[in-house]
Amino acid sequence: MRILVTGAGGFVGRALVARLGAGAMAFERLTLLDAHVPDIPDDDRVRVIIGDVAEHAVRARALDGGVDTVFHLIGVSSAASERDYALSRRVNLDATLALFEDAAAAGSRPRMVYTSSIAVYGAPLSDHVDDDTAAEPALIYGAHKRMCEIALADMSRRGEVEGIALRPGGIVARPYAGGGAGFLSDIFHAFLRNEPFVAPVSERAHSWLISVSRCIDNLIHAARMSPKAWPKGRALTMPALRVSMVELMDALARATGSNADRVSYEPQEWIETVYGSYPPLATPLSERFGFRNDGNVDTLVRTVLAALRSRG
Amino acid sequence: MRILVTGAGGFVGRALVARLGAGAMAFERLTLLDAHVPDIPDDDRVRVIIGDVAEHAVRARALDGGVDTVFHLIGVSSAASERDYALSRRVNLDATLALFEDAAAAGSRPRMVYTSSIAVYGAPLSDHVDDDTAAEPALIYGAHKRMCEIALADMSRRGEVEGIALRPGGIVARPYAGGGAGFLSDIFHAFLRNEPFVAPVSERAHSWLISVSRCIDNLIHAARMSPKAWPKGRALTMPALRVSMVELMDALARATGSNADRVSYEPQEWIETVYGSYPPLATPLSERFGFRNDGNVDTLVRTVLAALRSRG
Repeated sequence: MRILVTGAGGFVGRALVARLGAGAMAFERLTLLDAHVPDIPDDDRVRVIIGDVAEHAVRARALDGGVDTVFHLIGVSSAASERDYALSRRVNLDATLALFEDAAAAGSRPRMVYTSSIAVYGAPLSDHVDDDTAAEPALIYGAHKRMCEIALADMSRRGEVEGIALRPGGIVARPYAGGGAGFLSDIFHAFLRNEPFVAPVSERAHSWLISVSRCIDNLIHAARMSPKAWPKGRALTMPALRVSMVELMDALARATGSNADRVSYEPQEWIETVYGSYPPLATPLSERFGFRNDGNVDTLVRTVLAALRSRG
Repeated sequence: MRILVTGAGGFVGRALVARLGAGAMAFERLTLLDAHVPDIPDDDRVRVIIGDVAEHAVRARALDGGVDTVFHLIGVSSAASERDYALSRRVNLDATLALFEDAAAAGSRPRMVYTSSIAVYGAPLSDHVDDDTAAEPALIYGAHKRMCEIALADMSRRGEVEGIALRPGGIVARPYAGGGAGFLSDIFHAFLRNEPFVAPVSERAHSWLISVSRCIDNLIHAARMSPKAWPKGRALTMPALRVSMVELMDALARATGSNADRVSYEPQEWIETVYGSYPPLATPLSERFGFRNDGNVDTLVRTVLAALRSRG
């Protein structure tokens, strides 16, 4: 098994590489591609390519010697994409399509695990999101993700790659951001540090969350599964827990033995709208294919806190 | 009003240019872009650019002096796209996205009328297609059309263009093709020529048809309309009539005063599947925005025959 991870230096990429290094999948070669790769496993089978995935020569080096499985994680964030169309077009659209094509040209019909996003559903979200919800993106980021999903499905239909796109919700806990849209991760850091926390949303805000650990479980499952029939459109919403701020606070208080009243609420309208207004989510199709959320909020919180403590 | 028509030398483009030349829209300049433009109106306001829309310099010449309305018709056909991915990618995806971007850069927020396709719905079609049917393309052509629809909607959201994508059904009657997938047009020619006709589908085959004349009405309406709110996703299925082969034969016999038993049926499975298996179609949203089909099969047939006779 020859594995390529793009975005290997990012938040999800580092967690995935650690899991692969610890034996989650057997491999002869693991290629890590990113502009920076801070954690390189001490392993002869690991090859690191530092470079820009948008450059043909960089992709050629990353695919040199062939590939069986690609985890295509690299991407420009939603906020950065909305500020800079050309950057999102270059990385989230052009480089992604080019990587799909270059991997297809390798001729081994590689498994292509692509991290799409719930941003494909647009905003505001409807009352309820499920397997029948239409993808009508309302941001550059979501538009480019949806365009690449369509291309991946078509290349899979033609037998050039075996693609599967997963749309994760909010993956926690990212590194401390210090305010704004990063609050869903920052709140975990605040409880660990025993610090007060001002939430930029109301108590009633609801978000879709998944621990990075469970997200990695799902990505690896996507790389290993051999379903009798693939899902239509080759895209699945990754199961997530819909959690209110109050539920999250209470679970954090229980898990850390501390007090939830460290948290105060100063809602900002745009953050409440974009990050705190998620409707009920049903993902039965994704679950039939074996993907899972964290089960319940207490498990999610314990999993995230354990990961943060081990990261130090 | 400065108008650009790409694909001005194609079947729909020629009909649109004739209509514009006859005064369907007021303009100071009409730019016709295509690899070939057979019919050039004798009009000082008309500028012709012979070239490849995929080339930046060609697009720059076509947009030189600014633009208010673009009819983006040029494209590689579904069959040709399926044979040649790189060609569809170059024209149907890359050149189309580039044209959207170049037109946006003109700064006048041009109206962008984009001919998408019912191919975005994929195949086989579900039991019934309506405004809620998800776009899950199953051919390269449909995938690239859907990708461009998404990009157009996003650029419209950002106020860079005022885009509207229309998805026409089978536009009749194209020039005589002499068999295969062109049968829906060829049958009109056969009745006009008083020749026997072998249909490559069964009597029970159903297709979605629109006369080129009514299609042009709809494209011009798309260029002129100013709705209070644009449709979600900026894409509408153009109304079409769902017509069975028997209904079409009978209407042709009535309109030409001839006999429908000139037609025999030798169904080919793939043609029946791809071109003769269209389910009921409902387009209430499109109709609310003012788009129309031909009303009934007799009107459609009379309209098509009149156009063919005037083409000579």
